[in-house]
Amino acid sequence: MKEKSNTLELNCPLPISNYPNITLAHGSGGKLMNELINKMFRETFNNEIINEEHDGALLSIPNGKVAFTTDSYTIKPLFFRGGDIGKLAVYGTVNDLSMCGAIPKYISLSLIIEEGFDTKILWEIIQSIKIATDKTGVKIVTGDTKVINRIKDGDELFINTTGIGIIENNLEIKPTSIKVGDNIILSGDIGRHGISVLSSRENLEFETKLESDLAPLNNIVNELLDSGIEIHCLRDLTRGGLASALVELSKKSDMQFEIQSNEIPVSTPVLSVCELLGFDPVHIANEGRFIIFLPQQQTKKSIQILRKFEQSKLACLIGEVIKSKKGKVILKNEYGSNRILDMFSGELLPRIC
Amino acid sequence: MKEKSNTLELNCPLPISNYPNITLAHGSGGKLMNELINKMFRETFNNEIINEEHDGALLSIPNGKVAFTTDSYTIKPLFFRGGDIGKLAVYGTVNDLSMCGAIPKYISLSLIIEEGFDTKILWEIIQSIKIATDKTGVKIVTGDTKVINRIKDGDELFINTTGIGIIENNLEIKPTSIKVGDNIILSGDIGRHGISVLSSRENLEFETKLESDLAPLNNIVNELLDSGIEIHCLRDLTRGGLASALVELSKKSDMQFEIQSNEIPVSTPVLSVCELLGFDPVHIANEGRFIIFLPQQQTKKSIQILRKFEQSKLACLIGEVIKSKKGKVILKNEYGSNRILDMFSGELLPRIC
Repeated sequence: MKEKSNTLELNCPLPISNYPNITLAHGSGGKLMNELINKMFRETFNNEIINEEHDGALLSIPNGKVAFTTDSYTIKPLFFRGGDIGKLAVYGTVNDLSMCGAIPKYISLSLIIEEGFDTKILWEIIQSIKIATDKTGVKIVTGDTKVINRIKDGDELFINTTGIGIIENNLEIKPTSIKVGDNIILSGDIGRHGISVLSSRENLEFETKLESDLAPLNNIVNELLDSGIEIHCLRDLTRGGLASALVELSKKSDMQFEIQSNEIPVSTPVLSVCELLGFDPVHIANEGRFIIFLPQQQTKKSIQILRKFEQSKLACLIGEVIKSKKGKVILKNEYGSNRILDMFSGELLPRIC
Repeated sequence: MKEKSNTLELNCPLPISNYPNITLAHGSGGKLMNELINKMFRETFNNEIINEEHDGALLSIPNGKVAFTTDSYTIKPLFFRGGDIGKLAVYGTVNDLSMCGAIPKYISLSLIIEEGFDTKILWEIIQSIKIATDKTGVKIVTGDTKVINRIKDGDELFINTTGIGIIENNLEIKPTSIKVGDNIILSGDIGRHGISVLSSRENLEFETKLESDLAPLNNIVNELLDSGIEIHCLRDLTRGGLASALVELSKKSDMQFEIQSNEIPVSTPVLSVCELLGFDPVHIANEGRFIIFLPQQQTKKSIQILRKFEQSKLACLIGEVIKSKKGKVILKNEYGSNRILDMFSGELLPRIC
């Protein structure tokens, strides 16, 4: 009986044992790069577009309306509780497309690999990317591979994914579509991603094994749209947490939001760690949570739809858009007192995304 | 009278003196990141799409046929003879779109910046990107900024650009469109980029001040297409040089190419350095040269068009597609002897792209 990692390695069309570590030659345009790209990447993501081996992918966009988004992923550690950099790189970009009301279709994959990187770990991450693309229905259609000179431990990997999604609805889902009277729905409890990455990195052992909330949101958004919900704006909560998302949108739309702080779901483990370390959960990063701005009369139906999905089973109404002009976010606590919510101004957590 | 760098600094809407170096907080989703993105990036690239401040750009694609390409740029040094990483990141991606026969339209810009990076140098690079986008007519419509923990000197910057171009012709410009009998045109002398970056990095002083051939190719390709040239395939020569481009295309199309080595233009300084260091110019990187596969009867007209442009004034016929099956590249020298051209198999030059 073979161990899992050996089985995984054996499945790689590129004989990993020939090159247990990535060399500069794997990024320099010659034979080795060609072999790495063809055997490890192209055979894995195998589709008729990437197989053209062209300088770019040729795509057909049926109705001409697309969303286009980019993200570079620099997370450390590469594997954390609830995910890894590969899954993150796919779901993160898929989610940004979903936030535009688009159906995620095509993704580019660009890798910057440190010389000396463990080829087996690279293969594991490529497998994780493959699983994530299959799960979300996006195709990797073009890519790029660079190898940078050894920095220190040969364990740095940065991934850029850039995505194209097709917009099939007639809504204008964007910050400037937010209207006075809109309800604000939050899709679930906040702070899991930031705290779980922090604990994975620092080897902190908390009582509960907290996992990142990392998850694709495309199915949820698609179901909301298919059900005819008139969404005005969507925003996923990533770096900067719920606070940054709300503040950015209030400023861009120039609207005032009132948020009921006791309505914001936070799990006990996240709350305990935040209390212990002096963080506010509203500033902590997430990778599978989002907020929705929509007309009040659609709130009930939307929450019913959201709660059918595991990732958004705690969806709830957290606030509303109270007036226009002087865009800001007012956070009301359970005793009725108000504070103006702001982005944090320093470095809250070490690099978590 | 102010010095150039001070004037440049004063023009930056972000007060550089407040943050002479990039900190982790500039990438963590809070106020500083917001200020950096809005003041330095969004005000510079100012257009109605990026100003929406959405999770992605919403684009309208008139005829539904697009090319999509990605590249990460990791060049060191960041400034080299004939260019810099910013210009390279725009022209490189513009050129890949042109090689698909597309008109470059939209670009995403994703920066990975090392903590401690000189803010003034970042601003200089952003200005260079701005000039390059203006020159090529592409718009930066979405972006991402990450700051990674300090590695060593705080001088690492990696840029990913991913581009969308619109295809307005009815050709199928791609490797599998190459046909037996096609002529192969090379747009100019080879090896300038690789040798100039090498000399910039190693502070090598050659007799002539050799500059990179870095240049946008979109205008040249557009003019060929507008003139009705029936292009079968295009490929720009980047990493791996002319040799890799030819070998990749011969394998993908499964065709045999015959190349006349004495027809390949190489400048005297490139040739001297290659002879000195034992390199073959066909393996050296370029950033403004490309090859064209097209029917023999269109060669004369194409070369006339190419020679009207400064970057392709040395365009010439270098070979032809002699037969199908067993794709390979035969290099004929001036004495009539043949060798099979291959990609190089090691690490030719240290990281040049």
